[in-house]
Amino acid sequence: MTDSNVTVLFSDVNTMWTLIGAALVFFMQAGFAAVEAGFTRSKNSGNIIMKNLMDFSIGTPLYWLVGFGIMFGTHSAIFGGIDLFTRGDYTAILPDGVSFFAYFIFQTVFCATSATIVSGAMAERTKFSSYCIYSAVISLIIYPVSGHWIWGGGWLAQLGFHDFAGSTAVHMLGGLCALVGAAMLGARIGKYDKNGKPKAIPGHNIPLGALGVFVLWFCWFGFNGGSTVSMTDGGAELASIVFFNTNLAAAVATLATMIITWIRYKKPDVSMTLNGSLAGLVAVTAGCDCVNPWAAAIIGLLSAFAVVFGIEFVDKVLKIDDPVGAVGVHFCNGLLGTLLTGVFASNKWLADAGMTRGYFFGIQCLGALAVILWGGVTITITFFIIKKTIGLRVTREEELQGLDLPEHGLVSAYADFQPIFATMSAPTKNGAAAKAVSAKVDIDEAVPVVLKTPKAPVASDVKLTKIEIFVRQECFESLKQAMLDIGITGMTVTNVLGCGVQKGQPSYYRGAVQEITLHPRVQVEIVVSKIPVKTVIDAAKSVMYTGHTGDGKIFVYDVENVVKVRTGEEGVDALQDEEQY
Amino acid sequence: MTDSNVTVLFSDVNTMWTLIGAALVFFMQAGFAAVEAGFTRSKNSGNIIMKNLMDFSIGTPLYWLVGFGIMFGTHSAIFGGIDLFTRGDYTAILPDGVSFFAYFIFQTVFCATSATIVSGAMAERTKFSSYCIYSAVISLIIYPVSGHWIWGGGWLAQLGFHDFAGSTAVHMLGGLCALVGAAMLGARIGKYDKNGKPKAIPGHNIPLGALGVFVLWFCWFGFNGGSTVSMTDGGAELASIVFFNTNLAAAVATLATMIITWIRYKKPDVSMTLNGSLAGLVAVTAGCDCVNPWAAAIIGLLSAFAVVFGIEFVDKVLKIDDPVGAVGVHFCNGLLGTLLTGVFASNKWLADAGMTRGYFFGIQCLGALAVILWGGVTITITFFIIKKTIGLRVTREEELQGLDLPEHGLVSAYADFQPIFATMSAPTKNGAAAKAVSAKVDIDEAVPVVLKTPKAPVASDVKLTKIEIFVRQECFESLKQAMLDIGITGMTVTNVLGCGVQKGQPSYYRGAVQEITLHPRVQVEIVVSKIPVKTVIDAAKSVMYTGHTGDGKIFVYDVENVVKVRTGEEGVDALQDEEQY
Amino acid sequence: MTDSNVTVLFSDVNTMWTLIGAALVFFMQAGFAAVEAGFTRSKNSGNIIMKNLMDFSIGTPLYWLVGFGIMFGTHSAIFGGIDLFTRGDYTAILPDGVSFFAYFIFQTVFCATSATIVSGAMAERTKFSSYCIYSAVISLIIYPVSGHWIWGGGWLAQLGFHDFAGSTAVHMLGGLCALVGAAMLGARIGKYDKNGKPKAIPGHNIPLGALGVFVLWFCWFGFNGGSTVSMTDGGAELASIVFFNTNLAAAVATLATMIITWIRYKKPDVSMTLNGSLAGLVAVTAGCDCVNPWAAAIIGLLSAFAVVFGIEFVDKVLKIDDPVGAVGVHFCNGLLGTLLTGVFASNKWLADAGMTRGYFFGIQCLGALAVILWGGVTITITFFIIKKTIGLRVTREEELQGLDLPEHGLVSAYADFQPIFATMSAPTKNGAAAKAVSAKVDIDEAVPVVLKTPKAPVASDVKLTKIEIFVRQECFESLKQAMLDIGITGMTVTNVLGCGVQKGQPSYYRGAVQEITLHPRVQVEIVVSKIPVKTVIDAAKSVMYTGHTGDGKIFVYDVENVVKVRTGEEGVDALQDEEQY
Repeated sequence: MTDSNVTVLFSDVNTMWTLIGAALVFFMQAGFAAVEAGFTRSKNSGNIIMKNLMDFSIGTPLYWLVGFGIMFGTHSAIFGGIDLFTRGDYTAILPDGVSFFAYFIFQTVFCATSATIVSGAMAERTKFSSYCIYSAVISLIIYPVSGHWIWGGGWLAQLGFHDFAGSTAVHMLGGLCALVGAAMLGARIGKYDKNGKPKAIPGHNIPLGALGVFVLWFCWFGFNGGSTVSMTDGGAELASIVFFNTNLAAAVATLATMIITWIRYKKPDVSMTLNGSLAGLVAVTAGCDCVNPWAAAIIGLLSAFAVVFGIEFVDKVLKIDDPVGAVGVHFCNGLLGTLLTGVFASNKWLADAGMTRGYFFGIQCLGALAVILWGGVTITITFFIIKKTIGLRVTREEELQGLDLPEHGLVSAYADFQPIFATMSAPTKNGAAAKAVSAKVDIDEAVPVVLKTPKAPVASDVKLTKIEIFVRQECFESLKQAMLDIGITGMTVTNVLGCGVQKGQPSYYRGAVQEITLHPRVQVEIVVSKIPVKTVIDAAKSVMYTGHTGDGKIFVYDVENVVKVRTGEEGVDALQDEEQY
Repeated sequence: MTDSNVTVLFSDVNTMWTLIGAALVFFMQAGFAAVEAGFTRSKNSGNIIMKNLMDFSIGTPLYWLVGFGIMFGTHSAIFGGIDLFTRGDYTAILPDGVSFFAYFIFQTVFCATSATIVSGAMAERTKFSSYCIYSAVISLIIYPVSGHWIWGGGWLAQLGFHDFAGSTAVHMLGGLCALVGAAMLGARIGKYDKNGKPKAIPGHNIPLGALGVFVLWFCWFGFNGGSTVSMTDGGAELASIVFFNTNLAAAVATLATMIITWIRYKKPDVSMTLNGSLAGLVAVTAGCDCVNPWAAAIIGLLSAFAVVFGIEFVDKVLKIDDPVGAVGVHFCNGLLGTLLTGVFASNKWLADAGMTRGYFFGIQCLGALAVILWGGVTITITFFIIKKTIGLRVTREEELQGLDLPEHGLVSAYADFQPIFATMSAPTKNGAAAKAVSAKVDIDEAVPVVLKTPKAPVASDVKLTKIEIFVRQECFESLKQAMLDIGITGMTVTNVLGCGVQKGQPSYYRGAVQEITLHPRVQVEIVVSKIPVKTVIDAAKSVMYTGHTGDGKIFVYDVENVVKVRTGEEGVDALQDEEQY
Repeated sequence: MTDSNVTVLFSDVNTMWTLIGAALVFFMQAGFAAVEAGFTRSKNSGNIIMKNLMDFSIGTPLYWLVGFGIMFGTHSAIFGGIDLFTRGDYTAILPDGVSFFAYFIFQTVFCATSATIVSGAMAERTKFSSYCIYSAVISLIIYPVSGHWIWGGGWLAQLGFHDFAGSTAVHMLGGLCALVGAAMLGARIGKYDKNGKPKAIPGHNIPLGALGVFVLWFCWFGFNGGSTVSMTDGGAELASIVFFNTNLAAAVATLATMIITWIRYKKPDVSMTLNGSLAGLVAVTAGCDCVNPWAAAIIGLLSAFAVVFGIEFVDKVLKIDDPVGAVGVHFCNGLLGTLLTGVFASNKWLADAGMTRGYFFGIQCLGALAVILWGGVTITITFFIIKKTIGLRVTREEELQGLDLPEHGLVSAYADFQPIFATMSAPTKNGAAAKAVSAKVDIDEAVPVVLKTPKAPVASDVKLTKIEIFVRQECFESLKQAMLDIGITGMTVTNVLGCGVQKGQPSYYRGAVQEITLHPRVQVEIVVSKIPVKTVIDAAKSVMYTGHTGDGKIFVYDVENVVKVRTGEEGVDALQDEEQY
């Protein structure tokens, strides 16, 4: 056993750690896809899957083509250089003992993360082809250039800017592109009413979104922990504190967000709290290696405020429609974390780095500003060119229909499930239409209406009557039993929505008021002949009556005839049996 | 390359292994959340997500605050000591070569797991605020104290009690709290009929639950394998056998549970088999390091019986309602695994430990008993105080409605999907009501019923007409507004599919043409008397008309009668109000 | 610190890497389960979960029982030998520094993967008991024997055959069994029309399927990367290039598949693109250690063509029904990757291996052929015996109902959601029925129809009648066709629940009896004027009549008026068109 063998070991451990980190950061794609799909409507789920798959699949070859060279080349402090297919020699910039391809794959998965963040803010209305293009531009040039400044030995790195795992380089940049994109794209149809008041558009699958958050939190151990790209010479110690700080900040942020929403919205809000977890993770990313646990806890606490008020500010003041809160999570907390690193970096770390706190904080501000300028200008140009050429946004019809069908030919991402219709409508048409009615204008111009004589119907020899009962879901079982008790052998049950004018307490979804005017009800239809209608109504009333509003109504209709297919019996005879159909 | 470098390596590998284990054990939170959400009803999914997020987010800072100190302090064999914010020196208790913060985060994620287990058994009826409180108590004091006895050098450890990765310390303790909690809380409404016979309340998303089980099995490699907290000096060998035994026990348990359910229930039961996987994992956790593979297989086999009969015993004999089987999985198998470790520990391991099998088995029994006493007493006191102060359980109305809306303001965790109504009803009311009907009692006392001429159609004095409007989903909101504007106060809304002969462009799914001939439509039903039918039709046409095919149709029917249950009003009178039903 | 300590370290790192790989490969089970469940219909989801759980849980103990011995024993170049419960000494075949049980668990999880692949192609119609049996045969004998040839030092290994992580040994073999199985099983009911044209049967949960693909991609880093079973002596370097190539091939394959589907199907197809990711991963698996990145990119590109055209070939030319595309993904790309390894292996690697490219390519072809022969013959015999004894396929009724209820007693894997009915029907019955109608044959023989006084209930000048038909979900498609045949151009379709007193066998959920008294039905509403009511009823009866209870009922109502919004037409005129609404 010689020294050279020991050296091999030294390298192996660091490479292994980097590879594990890379696998975990890749898996963040699953988390982002799940969060974005879960927090939006089901009619766009296929499109969201495709976007998340594509930003990674486009980013990977482009980062190989030139991105890595731009970021880690040594051409200048501004721009790393062009190295087609990354065939250069990067030995000089590799961390101790990390093999080249391990470092390369680790950087590749980071790059793709930045592009993914944009997707959520622009969800439910962006053209798929445009998405592919701007996602490519981010991976090709925007991310690698500022990445070079921060991590590739560029001018910010030389000044002492510190962004351990990417609060600025990845999250703030991604969140910034998300902000610009969502602003240039405009809000989803129905998001703001005519007075500009935001309406809640609830996500279609909160458990999926929550699973995504858990996946992201899990993978963040690779994102931050793996960023030591070392397990030797103090790397193990460093990775351990990074793990601890990351987890503590995330936990405190989650708890604090839950409490803030409980106070502000009267209820602990589920989806905002899930955003809170991500906010804590983003904020602690810049400084998780250089702050003490108590500072990580404070960063987590502050990030909770940043995410709640950031999302509300974007939604209510800027009136920019960001379906998943990407701007609040990634931009606001990427920025916050970068600055708080300047505030909370430990004295020991500052001394080792040879910087005063004042100087360091200034550099953190400068770095954030520089990336905002770079990213803001380049992504604005990108979106502007796309908008003026192929267009950024799908048509109104495509958006109302959901992007799955027009963009991907997918009738539904949930083919077996009966969808509830969209409770959102088109505000312009809506307003116009409602006005038309009240003003009694132009209806009869459009189509002349002449009603035809609704005279007395006639049935068969024995009268058949349909009784339609609308009942609360929780009373259905009692009603069913009561009907069986009086000899009703079959009934048809349908889920319907009752739509009335009664209004309840305001309810909040992510800070926006949601109007709940549709109440689920069960419609039970029974056709009787021998059993008197009065008996049925009495029995129904006895189980439905509570004295509160919403006890239900019963409608009675005449039936002309009934045919029972199996026996061919008709009329009364068709109802005399134990079978329903 | 000097010796000191080699020492660094020694440390790095163990720390890395511990950190990977910590990340995996964190990810168990996703698994627990998915299992609990999947095995319960959709109306509580948001609440379940929040609980799983909160126990981790509350547990993490509390374990930092005092939990770790209580567990690993060296104050006494009973109680580790109070060390606010864990600033003490724990070098003495750290495993060889594991950095402090790596060990700390590893212990933190274990602590949170114990609290999570309770959540499932108390699902669908526990107040969220109460949940947060008892979850905090477990992380703050209950888990750390018994953890100190077992893993912190306390009296059980000194006696030779062996619980490698936490069958007792984590799972049995969590399962015990679950048992006490579910018992004190009472069963969900509709779980037991009036004779005390349990009814099935099916989970709403079995694939999500299954995904959770796969996640847990995956993470268990970190839970058990990571518990070597070492990859050197035999650690690698030990971790390998731990991996093998863990997997073998889980596989055998799954297979055996499937066969048992096939015999007992005539069919291989999906959700019970998923519980079986977890049962095997829990049972092998105590002894996976000290038994041979054949013994691991037997432990897996026995755990299958423990979980099936344990769950049935809790459900049918104890009549304690445990929606996800947490007691059967974690308590029964945690206990079983602890005792079987005494039975199956290899002779070599016993010899190395210097214990006879009889003594060791006795100590395992003693340890289990001690933890049952400690946990049982403290959690009972905790729940008792909560019950007597803020209350443990939500109101009957909140429970029937589902906890998402009253506790979190979340209308639905699956906003786009049409829910099937709950097939469970309130047994007390149900029973009472059904009796009322058959006994013909008190109906007319509640509301006097006088049916109006259920003969000759043309119901009452004033004609009632039903108008049925079929409208595109995106126009529904406009239609609703137009109807409100003309004074319609209630309508019934149903999702239907329009099936016509019009054909569109061919659409492809995986290369095969799909025919889309069913188009989603919204059916709106309105019954009017005083408002003229023509007014309704005109208003509807004004918002529905675009001139394109598919603008919709309106059907008009005669209605014989209407009864409003709350007031007993009929005919026209029943329609004169602000309420729909 | 002595040399022996350093040796320990050497071992530890390799063992750790192998264990991490094993955990990730285990987690692929979650990915496979999610993809298969997501790409099929919800009525089979419980069954799919069980199958994926069982192949692993059956495979694990069997591989321990004899599989590992057959694969890694040193008996001969054809067959490793029988070593009950794997108690032999395998020191000689262990990779440097990997502990025995680490290698054993790593091989176990690989074995289970092969069996899992078959599941997807045979989904939605295979008997569960038969599935368990053939899954056992694959793990017991088919996989271990060819595995011995390739990885166990058998004759292919000796000749120089190279299959780094299992394009042939795992994927092609699994895909081959899938192909044979799907062919012998026959297509799902409704998959092909009477002209043999394939119809799309959309998956029920594309986000779940996508999550599965992300999980698989993530775990593939363990599958391929872990297959170095070494992190020392160049292992770290090798694992790094394996990671990079694996990711690059997958990304390029995904992107290329998206583009191919965009061109061929006019839209970027979501589910095919997800298959494309897997195709790239499968194809690069054989050679990821010995090709350069540019070659990995080309392998990814070619795999995109292989998967799109492979799936179409199986679907349209072979007319074999493979619901998830397992044959196209695993067989086609397993084969492709094996051969392309011969084409693209780097010169340096070939030189080190001491082979010419021509020889090596020949051996790759020979190896693929040998495994196809071995796998093809043995699995055909296996399926043949099962088919002739207990049968491979469920009954027609079970398949139409979905396997969850008849095979597992699970009413629904999504109990809270209202299902949309299956848009697929039985082609034979359908064809026959439709013919019966047009030929006016045997309807009145089956059941004499005498309509009772359909007298003029005086609506407008011409009577309008609503006919309400309640039909089983599986008969809906036939009914729709029959209605179109008699000139009905529009109908409204609603999912309802029939609630009757008929009671079936008791069914269990987690041991508790569940009462299934609500049966899903489709309610079809048709309004007619010129077409006689009797014609509609006759046509409906002809397709609905089977003579069994539950054949359905038909209700007839008077309609006062109809208004068609687009044209303003009323009464009869509003019904005279090709449009429904």
